[in-house]
Amino acid sequence: MTAQIQEIEREFLSYVKKIQAYTEALGLIYWDLRTGAPKNGVEQRAEVIGILSSEVFHMSTSEEMAAYIASLSTEQQQLSEITQKTLEECQKNYERNKKIPVNEFKEYVILQSKAESVWEEAKSKADFSLFEPYLEKIIDYKKKFIGYWGSGENKYDTLLDMYEPGMTVTILDQVFDDLRKSIVALLNQIEQSPNKPDTEFLYSHFPKDNQRDFSLEILSQMGYDFASGRLDETIHPFATGLNPGDVRVTTRYDENDFRTAVFGTIHEGGHALYEQNISKELIGSPLCGGTSMGIHESQSLFYENLVGRDYSFWKKNYSKLKEYANGQFDSVSLEEFYHAINESRPSFIRIEADMLTYPLHIIIRYEIEKGIFNDEIQVKDLPKIWDDKYEEYLGIRPSNDAEGILQDVHWAGGDFGYFPSYALGYMYAAQLKHAMLKDVPGFDEHLANGNLEPIREWLTAKVHQYGKLKKPLEILKDVTGEGLNAKYLIEYLQEKYTNVYQLQE
Amino acid sequence: MTAQIQEIEREFLSYVKKIQAYTEALGLIYWDLRTGAPKNGVEQRAEVIGILSSEVFHMSTSEEMAAYIASLSTEQQQLSEITQKTLEECQKNYERNKKIPVNEFKEYVILQSKAESVWEEAKSKADFSLFEPYLEKIIDYKKKFIGYWGSGENKYDTLLDMYEPGMTVTILDQVFDDLRKSIVALLNQIEQSPNKPDTEFLYSHFPKDNQRDFSLEILSQMGYDFASGRLDETIHPFATGLNPGDVRVTTRYDENDFRTAVFGTIHEGGHALYEQNISKELIGSPLCGGTSMGIHESQSLFYENLVGRDYSFWKKNYSKLKEYANGQFDSVSLEEFYHAINESRPSFIRIEADMLTYPLHIIIRYEIEKGIFNDEIQVKDLPKIWDDKYEEYLGIRPSNDAEGILQDVHWAGGDFGYFPSYALGYMYAAQLKHAMLKDVPGFDEHLANGNLEPIREWLTAKVHQYGKLKKPLEILKDVTGEGLNAKYLIEYLQEKYTNVYQLQE
Repeated sequence: MTAQIQEIEREFLSYVKKIQAYTEALGLIYWDLRTGAPKNGVEQRAEVIGILSSEVFHMSTSEEMAAYIASLSTEQQQLSEITQKTLEECQKNYERNKKIPVNEFKEYVILQSKAESVWEEAKSKADFSLFEPYLEKIIDYKKKFIGYWGSGENKYDTLLDMYEPGMTVTILDQVFDDLRKSIVALLNQIEQSPNKPDTEFLYSHFPKDNQRDFSLEILSQMGYDFASGRLDETIHPFATGLNPGDVRVTTRYDENDFRTAVFGTIHEGGHALYEQNISKELIGSPLCGGTSMGIHESQSLFYENLVGRDYSFWKKNYSKLKEYANGQFDSVSLEEFYHAINESRPSFIRIEADMLTYPLHIIIRYEIEKGIFNDEIQVKDLPKIWDDKYEEYLGIRPSNDAEGILQDVHWAGGDFGYFPSYALGYMYAAQLKHAMLKDVPGFDEHLANGNLEPIREWLTAKVHQYGKLKKPLEILKDVTGEGLNAKYLIEYLQEKYTNVYQLQE
Repeated sequence: MTAQIQEIEREFLSYVKKIQAYTEALGLIYWDLRTGAPKNGVEQRAEVIGILSSEVFHMSTSEEMAAYIASLSTEQQQLSEITQKTLEECQKNYERNKKIPVNEFKEYVILQSKAESVWEEAKSKADFSLFEPYLEKIIDYKKKFIGYWGSGENKYDTLLDMYEPGMTVTILDQVFDDLRKSIVALLNQIEQSPNKPDTEFLYSHFPKDNQRDFSLEILSQMGYDFASGRLDETIHPFATGLNPGDVRVTTRYDENDFRTAVFGTIHEGGHALYEQNISKELIGSPLCGGTSMGIHESQSLFYENLVGRDYSFWKKNYSKLKEYANGQFDSVSLEEFYHAINESRPSFIRIEADMLTYPLHIIIRYEIEKGIFNDEIQVKDLPKIWDDKYEEYLGIRPSNDAEGILQDVHWAGGDFGYFPSYALGYMYAAQLKHAMLKDVPGFDEHLANGNLEPIREWLTAKVHQYGKLKKPLEILKDVTGEGLNAKYLIEYLQEKYTNVYQLQE
């Protein structure tokens, strides 16, 4: 390596480290805002956020950044792998931001914030027509941006790629089609089954402090490292990785439904294990984070469902749960409990959906978004299309726009291409488990013994450690030897719900 | 105002706002580190602190800052008062940092960190000779810096001014002399008094959660606004004003001595009231903070002693304290309790000293620092000088360097000129109370009724709201009509301890 390139590489990495430092400070500020920051300080804190975020944006799109990209990208072979991938990340981000004319982007940001408040009003009035013109404009901008960014065979691919690098309509059409058909078939069987779980006992009073203590025990069992994290209370739970040594989990307690905290904590704990186990070599670079929304969600869903809603897991933990509870499970057998926590029932609201119907909520949004960006769907027709799809797939029809098309804020913020990640994560999780079983054949036994370490170690070796060094489909290929395949999730769902609802096979 | 100056003023204020935003982010990071940040994340968090602090330093000493100072300081009359004072602050800070040659400062910083670890070892071995050469060098640098910064008639004034703008040896010699004589006389009387308070009951077990609940009630009574703050646990308690809407208090709980948390919380609450009540106009400028160490300490000591250790205050709150306690006060009268919490007893360690002997610990350090910077004291003689002074003023002689000269870390870090602030704060507090009584004659009655609002309002009107808009001695002059005067603290101490120890008047 020439001394000159070496010097530029050094400068570039230290420039990037500064961006990451500001990002870490922002992460702490957001965590603080959501876990108890005094409300009167929020206005000024927003100024601080604005100033730090502008600086991050400025540094990421500066002439200095452009110069680093220009000098280093012709010398790729001379750079370490970390520098190469860091450069790629920076370049992608640079181009995404630079290709949109500054004025258009400003107009768009203003429109977004208007659209969000109009959406709020429209939702409270259950009246899509109020929101329609704003959504129309948001979509127009987004289409224009796709024009600037460039697209492959499908315009929607450009949006998918933002959240799930490498993901395409071609891949998703196939897997979502398979998945949808299987779930719809299962739902029909379930509806006809006479064996519905009793769930009434789930809603008894379970003291918050006891929920917390139980959640802490489960986090420990999962291998969450409390010297590298903490558990706090919040309204909308999340996990945040400030750096691998500081990955915080938050949860919400509902004293009349312990599942909110327990499954929520396991879910966020899955995200947290990912961030805690990223290789320390990546600290200070933009590679130090989950590689995509979908892979991140695969980790949380792996723990929430494939571990946390597994029968063997509760073999170990049900008696402990009983100790913490106020007698609500005293006359409930392990089987009854297991069936209850795996109940499935079609419903309108995505964020309240069970783990069988959830992918259908996602697939509906995917089909609609794809239609919008391929100019096959007009905004004015959205409520009807939405309702028709709910009726077709889930067998229920929303009674108004608030429980239909207006339920999610995402589109008001221009977040298209984001929803598929949730269902992708679920498919990745099932596919990863299939591969894991070859290396960890004692999976069920480990769960029954409360020994989750082999599972965490396998996920760290195969997924966590790489951070953004590998792309989502690269991880999948390396680990499973194939591309995305809905088969594994379908098999998992069939097996689970056949058991829970004692379906005829 | 010319349009050009107006534009420069606008740019300057926004530049300064950015510095303040970074400072606020740093404040949150420090708070977090001291209230539960996961330990494994600390190393990388230190990097973030380093990067943000360098940026603050860089911006404060940049050519851009120099240009603002140059263009605006010739146009003072055209600027708003806030801009003028902001400019003064920036200029003072700029000059302080720029006058030291960069290399010398770097050497000094390295020396500091070495000196701190050597101090630690020396303290653990109670051996000053290990630390002596480092202290010698630290002092040499500090003397050189004074040469760069410039000094008035007394070199030590330059250091005093850093913590207490406007404070001088001439003023302090007078007031500390008065104070010392009076306290020493009082101590002699106390020693001879047969009426020693019984304090054994103070050390009973008082559950932490109850201490916390009681502390929260007292903070509320003081007028601390929980919508603009919160109370957390830490090892070395502090209050931090991130902005006036977010001023956090921390405390430490000792289950065998409730005074640690209760008086600690009241003390930090006094600091917090100051920061919560700074005028919102100052947000985003360097004026948005306490005007000096001494004035800040006047607020904490006002609440801790003149309120929190006052008889009337406990008339209101003693029964409440009994409710939270585990029966430890059941056979203790209000008078006995009041006497116990005002016990005085000479001791070696400053941070454990009671509120009568505390100023003597400060005065000893003041006399020694002054001697050092006026070349009247040699470093090798320090242990003997220290021990002699303790014997002369407090009547006790340290048995080794660890409980003598080596007890505080400050000098290892080069913090000279800082100690006097503690005693200054105490004098300011007494002097402020004397002035307050003219406007709030029902002081005792208010305390007895738990109505602390008139006191808080008066302090806000006279002190808090100004932030750094007024200098310490300017506040004192405006409020009391005179300069610093030890008389008020002396009278307060005489009255209190005559009562507690039933001395002959």
